[in-house]
Amino acid sequence: MARYDRAITVFSPDGHLFQVEYALEAVRKGSLAVGVRGTDAIVLGVEKKAVAKLQVAQTVRKIAQIDDHICLAFAGLTADARVLINKSRVEAQSHRLTLDERASVEHMTRYIAGVQQKYTQSGGVRPFGISTLIVGFDPLGRPALYQTDPSGSYSAWKANAIGRNSKTVREFLEKNYAETSGRETMKLALKALVEVVEGSSKNIEVAVVEKEGGLRFLADDEVDALVKELEEEKAAAAPQRPAQPQ
Amino acid sequence: MARYDRAITVFSPDGHLFQVEYALEAVRKGSLAVGVRGTDAIVLGVEKKAVAKLQVAQTVRKIAQIDDHICLAFAGLTADARVLINKSRVEAQSHRLTLDERASVEHMTRYIAGVQQKYTQSGGVRPFGISTLIVGFDPLGRPALYQTDPSGSYSAWKANAIGRNSKTVREFLEKNYAETSGRETMKLALKALVEVVEGSSKNIEVAVVEKEGGLRFLADDEVDALVKELEEEKAAAAPQRPAQPQ
Amino acid sequence: MARYDRAITVFSPDGHLFQVEYALEAVRKGSLAVGVRGTDAIVLGVEKKAVAKLQVAQTVRKIAQIDDHICLAFAGLTADARVLINKSRVEAQSHRLTLDERASVEHMTRYIAGVQQKYTQSGGVRPFGISTLIVGFDPLGRPALYQTDPSGSYSAWKANAIGRNSKTVREFLEKNYAETSGRETMKLALKALVEVVEGSSKNIEVAVVEKEGGLRFLADDEVDALVKELEEEKAAAAPQRPAQPQ
Amino acid sequence: MARYDRAITVFSPDGHLFQVEYALEAVRKGSLAVGVRGTDAIVLGVEKKAVAKLQVAQTVRKIAQIDDHICLAFAGLTADARVLINKSRVEAQSHRLTLDERASVEHMTRYIAGVQQKYTQSGGVRPFGISTLIVGFDPLGRPALYQTDPSGSYSAWKANAIGRNSKTVREFLEKNYAETSGRETMKLALKALVEVVEGSSKNIEVAVVEKEGGLRFLADDEVDALVKELEEEKAAAAPQRPAQPQ
Amino acid sequence: MARYDRAITVFSPDGHLFQVEYALEAVRKGSLAVGVRGTDAIVLGVEKKAVAKLQVAQTVRKIAQIDDHICLAFAGLTADARVLINKSRVEAQSHRLTLDERASVEHMTRYIAGVQQKYTQSGGVRPFGISTLIVGFDPLGRPALYQTDPSGSYSAWKANAIGRNSKTVREFLEKNYAETSGRETMKLALKALVEVVEGSSKNIEVAVVEKEGGLRFLADDEVDALVKELEEEKAAAAPQRPAQPQ
Amino acid sequence: MARYDRAITVFSPDGHLFQVEYALEAVRKGSLAVGVRGTDAIVLGVEKKAVAKLQVAQTVRKIAQIDDHICLAFAGLTADARVLINKSRVEAQSHRLTLDERASVEHMTRYIAGVQQKYTQSGGVRPFGISTLIVGFDPLGRPALYQTDPSGSYSAWKANAIGRNSKTVREFLEKNYAETSGRETMKLALKALVEVVEGSSKNIEVAVVEKEGGLRFLADDEVDALVKELEEEKAAAAPQRPAQPQ
Amino acid sequence: MARYDRAITVFSPDGHLFQVEYALEAVRKGSLAVGVRGTDAIVLGVEKKAVAKLQVAQTVRKIAQIDDHICLAFAGLTADARVLINKSRVEAQSHRLTLDERASVEHMTRYIAGVQQKYTQSGGVRPFGISTLIVGFDPLGRPALYQTDPSGSYSAWKANAIGRNSKTVREFLEKNYAETSGRETMKLALKALVEVVEGSSKNIEVAVVEKEGGLRFLADDEVDALVKELEEEKAAAAPQRPAQPQ
Repeated sequence: MARYDRAITVFSPDGHLFQVEYALEAVRKGSLAVGVRGTDAIVLGVEKKAVAKLQVAQTVRKIAQIDDHICLAFAGLTADARVLINKSRVEAQSHRLTLDERASVEHMTRYIAGVQQKYTQSGGVRPFGISTLIVGFDPLGRPALYQTDPSGSYSAWKANAIGRNSKTVREFLEKNYAETSGRETMKLALKALVEVVEGSSKNIEVAVVEKEGGLRFLADDEVDALVKELEEEKAAAAPQRPAQPQ
Repeated sequence: MARYDRAITVFSPDGHLFQVEYALEAVRKGSLAVGVRGTDAIVLGVEKKAVAKLQVAQTVRKIAQIDDHICLAFAGLTADARVLINKSRVEAQSHRLTLDERASVEHMTRYIAGVQQKYTQSGGVRPFGISTLIVGFDPLGRPALYQTDPSGSYSAWKANAIGRNSKTVREFLEKNYAETSGRETMKLALKALVEVVEGSSKNIEVAVVEKEGGLRFLADDEVDALVKELEEEKAAAAPQRPAQPQ
Repeated sequence: MARYDRAITVFSPDGHLFQVEYALEAVRKGSLAVGVRGTDAIVLGVEKKAVAKLQVAQTVRKIAQIDDHICLAFAGLTADARVLINKSRVEAQSHRLTLDERASVEHMTRYIAGVQQKYTQSGGVRPFGISTLIVGFDPLGRPALYQTDPSGSYSAWKANAIGRNSKTVREFLEKNYAETSGRETMKLALKALVEVVEGSSKNIEVAVVEKEGGLRFLADDEVDALVKELEEEKAAAAPQRPAQPQ
Repeated sequence: MARYDRAITVFSPDGHLFQVEYALEAVRKGSLAVGVRGTDAIVLGVEKKAVAKLQVAQTVRKIAQIDDHICLAFAGLTADARVLINKSRVEAQSHRLTLDERASVEHMTRYIAGVQQKYTQSGGVRPFGISTLIVGFDPLGRPALYQTDPSGSYSAWKANAIGRNSKTVREFLEKNYAETSGRETMKLALKALVEVVEGSSKNIEVAVVEKEGGLRFLADDEVDALVKELEEEKAAAAPQRPAQPQ
Repeated sequence: MARYDRAITVFSPDGHLFQVEYALEAVRKGSLAVGVRGTDAIVLGVEKKAVAKLQVAQTVRKIAQIDDHICLAFAGLTADARVLINKSRVEAQSHRLTLDERASVEHMTRYIAGVQQKYTQSGGVRPFGISTLIVGFDPLGRPALYQTDPSGSYSAWKANAIGRNSKTVREFLEKNYAETSGRETMKLALKALVEVVEGSSKNIEVAVVEKEGGLRFLADDEVDALVKELEEEKAAAAPQRPAQPQ
Repeated sequence: MARYDRAITVFSPDGHLFQVEYALEAVRKGSLAVGVRGTDAIVLGVEKKAVAKLQVAQTVRKIAQIDDHICLAFAGLTADARVLINKSRVEAQSHRLTLDERASVEHMTRYIAGVQQKYTQSGGVRPFGISTLIVGFDPLGRPALYQTDPSGSYSAWKANAIGRNSKTVREFLEKNYAETSGRETMKLALKALVEVVEGSSKNIEVAVVEKEGGLRFLADDEVDALVKELEEEKAAAAPQRPAQPQ
Repeated sequence: MARYDRAITVFSPDGHLFQVEYALEAVRKGSLAVGVRGTDAIVLGVEKKAVAKLQVAQTVRKIAQIDDHICLAFAGLTADARVLINKSRVEAQSHRLTLDERASVEHMTRYIAGVQQKYTQSGGVRPFGISTLIVGFDPLGRPALYQTDPSGSYSAWKANAIGRNSKTVREFLEKNYAETSGRETMKLALKALVEVVEGSSKNIEVAVVEKEGGLRFLADDEVDALVKELEEEKAAAAPQRPAQPQ
């Protein structure tokens, strides 16, 4: 089977595009990103890559602004992501200029997924080694959270996770998701992240797109405060769950 | 024989284009799509991909509108389909602008199949990993249902299915097809789908192109109502079929 | 020897172009097409591909009109044929516009064979997987029947067959061909087809280009009537041939 | 050594271009063509390809007119030859238009050989699988017979043969060539052909370029008459050669 | 696994781009470069390649000026670096001309990393075999030190090292980094270098970008003076560290 | 080592370009060409390829005129040579038109060698399979004889030989060369040729470029007369050399 | 490891570009070139390739003038060198025309090294198989001697050697180099050459770029006189070194 996976323009006998699947593997090894849709805010949380002691943390952000009202988190190859982010920003500005209105979140998602697909069907290029979570508010004020992957597929979610341990986190979200608003939405995103990442602003970065006010990166103390709150809630809730014997 | 299947521009000694056949395998693994032609309506039904709990279902639609009066369902790689759908929409609009009339269903089918063929004969690209069902009404008001595949072949059908389990469903349709109208056509499409998909709006999506009124996606409760009706009819019919002993 | 057959631009040590020969194999697996030249009509008959029960038969036609007076049947990959047919139609119209007269059958044959040859000598493309039978009347009113193959060779014939079982049918035609006219020419073509295809309008499609009146597809009942006539003639003739003992 | 023969742009360690040699092999398998230069006529004779019973013979001619006064016979791939012939005709017309005079036979030969060479040195194409015999009268009225091969080499001859059995025929010509004129030149060409081809207009095609009058294809009865004459001469000569005992 | 590493456009099954990783190996073999960010100066120190006796040392500099206020050190293939440096200089000048202001250090870093990424995703080129340290002052007067690598990733640092032995040096910096200014910053960079390089102006080259005054290469005697100071400090500090027995 | 010789753009580990060396092998198999520089004439002599009995000899000339005053002999692939000769003639004419003076022999040599080099460094083409001897008089009236080879190297010679047996002939020339003029120069060239070729105008072709009068091909009887002279001189000289006993 | 060395755009797992290293091997096999920088003259000396007896020596010069004041010697493939030399001359003239001043030696070196680098990073070409020594005087009258290699690296030297035996010669220069002027500089260059080449104008070529007067090739007798002087000095110095017993 190995023989069909060295050229992206080739299907394997059972209909696979191996290069796309291997790119997905690069995503699976990328740092975790979580997105949670609330009623008046959408929250993106990412695991900070093990930052070296002397590294300046904010330069390795895995969350990027596409336009005033649209924001993207990614898992996978950072350098690849930058190419997609640059292309998206140009598209967003070009949309504003041409149509005199902001691009919808879905428009930007279709654009990004379209670029990703193109790199899976033409020769001489490799797929993008990233998945993305794209969030923002629709012109009608509805919150939107989309996910794209290296194949160029996309879909909308209430909450989702990509990257390392995303399966565990997605299962957590499936059990615990409820449509919340404001601070509660942030706490849900953080709760999901701390399932697999040790909780502290050192390891976690959070951005919120709010209906009123647009994108905002949470300050480190805001993150730490939220994490503390979560821990207190957990401690308070603990007596309710008897210790699991054995 | 394996040596002839790694480059699309190459025939195998027995005259096969393996890449096209492997793309077809990707189609066979795609979610099921069913099309049924009635006298005043054509119905497309698709198995909803196992949607994750938090996924927003309508974004993973496998049914897409090409123009007011033409609609397409596909089985296979979603990202590939989007490329074809975009190209088709541009062609449909361009046809309207140039000729001041709507493109016929056959014209759009020839266009889509032509694009698919081109990707099987030129170097540097791979075939599209999708089959399509294209439906709509002719200028003369005749219903039309076409099917295309990765080789670029196309043909017209009274009813057909593509994707996973399509063989079983096609056999069911062959036994049960009758030219119907309105609600009956929808029920036949649903009946075919529930042969292999568990019936409920959670798993099934249905779109109808009606002679008067154009394309309409059925609401979830409409689908559920139809499924219930089918079950009641089946229950009512059951006594006629004695239980198969052993 | 296998090492010389994976790139079309390469001769094998004994002077073969394997890709062209493999394309010919795709033709040999295609459905049978028969052409018979009469004095005032040329008949094309094709085996209908095993049409599925719900398939609308006329969309899978293997006979196509190139211009008012020229018609083409093919054996091999349907999607490839469509590309050649489209190119031929454009050439035919362009010939009319430029020279203000209809292209001759030989001109169209040279054009089609030329396109086929080009795909055997340039890199990055594969040969067309089809052979064609091209028929029509010359400007001087002489009937013409040409055959082309994937190598780009062409030749004129009184009667010929391409595709599955074409060898058997060609031998039949060699034994039974006589220059006929009108109904007799159609019957010869049908007779040749029913040598290897079960005779009925369900399995056979017939088109006639008549000196006066141009191209006409035979209706199903016309085909059935002719088949019945043939059977009756055969039955009538049977007593003359004593049963072959042993 | 086999490793150097799969890409035309590559020499083998002992300085061979294998692809050119393999193309020559395709020529060696092509039907025989013979050219004989007389004082007032140059004769081209070709073995007719085993024409099928119902094939119209003249469409598979291996002799083609390049201009009023220049004619070409070829051995090898017919479809390749057509490409070269078309290019040559355009060059001949273009020469007339630009210089207001007919191209010389040598000019056309250099042109054809130049095209053949180009296909042996550039990537992405294969050599032409044909050798040619080019004949005509020089502006000064001198008869000329040239031969080109797939490498793009060319040379002038008094008489020569290409294709299947050409070696035997060339040896015959070497023994029997004398500068003749008119009917005698035709007879020499035929004599050479019937050394390896059974003599009759069914198997042999002859074209003559005459100083006055240009190109003329011999009618079948002319060929048959000549063949008969040859046989009578042979019979008359026979007594001189005592029967070879045993 | 070796099979996935010979073409840059191909992922390995576990999501690696081997060519990028091998380019990183070329970096790891390059001479060491160290960067240290102070409050009013940023220092770049590089190990001088073992210069041959007769070689003129300054021509093999691994530190290059991009603009008045931005400077770059690299580890890896010198000739590759020159290409990137030239491109960067043009970009810096073009930025000045277009926007009438100096490019920020981050802008230049994004530019350089973007060029590096492009060479990892397109066919027909190989990645750049260098990592870079880019330093300078922001328009607001804040010191900046960035690092890029062959994948096109970049990040900001307080202090960092690339090339041979960079791991050891980075660990040293992590233990000893403190935000310093002026001469102290230079001494820290030198201290880090002499961890793995023998200390003397013969083996070490140092450049400083100062808030006021821009880029300055340290003269050999300045370097030697600093090295001497370091040695004296070390000697003075030695009594505090008892000799390691055994 | 064989693995480095199948693509011209690749060096072998020991620094060889095998394709160039294999092209040189094609030259070594080509017919011998000899050049001898005299004071007022430069002589080119070539071994005539074993011309078939009916071949017209002058069409296979290995000596070609580039301009009135420059002449070229080659060894290797005739069809390749024609390409180079055509390019050279265009360059020579273009030089005359642009600069209003004749190109020098060195200019033409640099041009030809430059074309040959280009075919050794770019992908998609193979080297020219020929070496050349280029002769003529400089604008100052000095005789010049240059040699080029497939690598694109060139050098000036007093006398030289290329092609089959060139080593033997070069050694002969080294022993016997003296700066001569007129008839003596021709005799030296012939003497060198007959060392390895049987002497007669049937096997030898000679061209002379004379200071006054330009290029002249020697008639067959001139060649034969010279050969006879040589034989007589040898016979006269023979007594001086006593027969070598045993 | 052999698997990574057949395509220039590919790194080996340990970060090597093998094609560049193999090109360097072609340099190592080229004839020796030596450069020595004096205060008022820079001397280039090259080993003359074993010139055949009849070859005109000056046409195989390995020293070329780039501009009035800049000169280049090379080791490696002569035909490759010519391409670089031509490009350099055009660049030098273009620099004069555009900037109305002579290009500096460093500018020309950067240009040449840049061209060499480009051929190591793009597909479809191979690296240049040469190293160069580039010499001349700076606008400020300072002597400059640069060396480039196939990777596109360059550096300045007081004295250096490239090609066959360059290591031995470089070691000699390291022991014996002193900044000299005029005749002494020439003698040092010659002394270095005769370490590995037999000393005589037959085997050695010398060019001097002088501060006043520009480039001058030494006449053969000048070279021989210098060699004699060297021998006499050596003989005079000999008594100081007692004969090495056994």
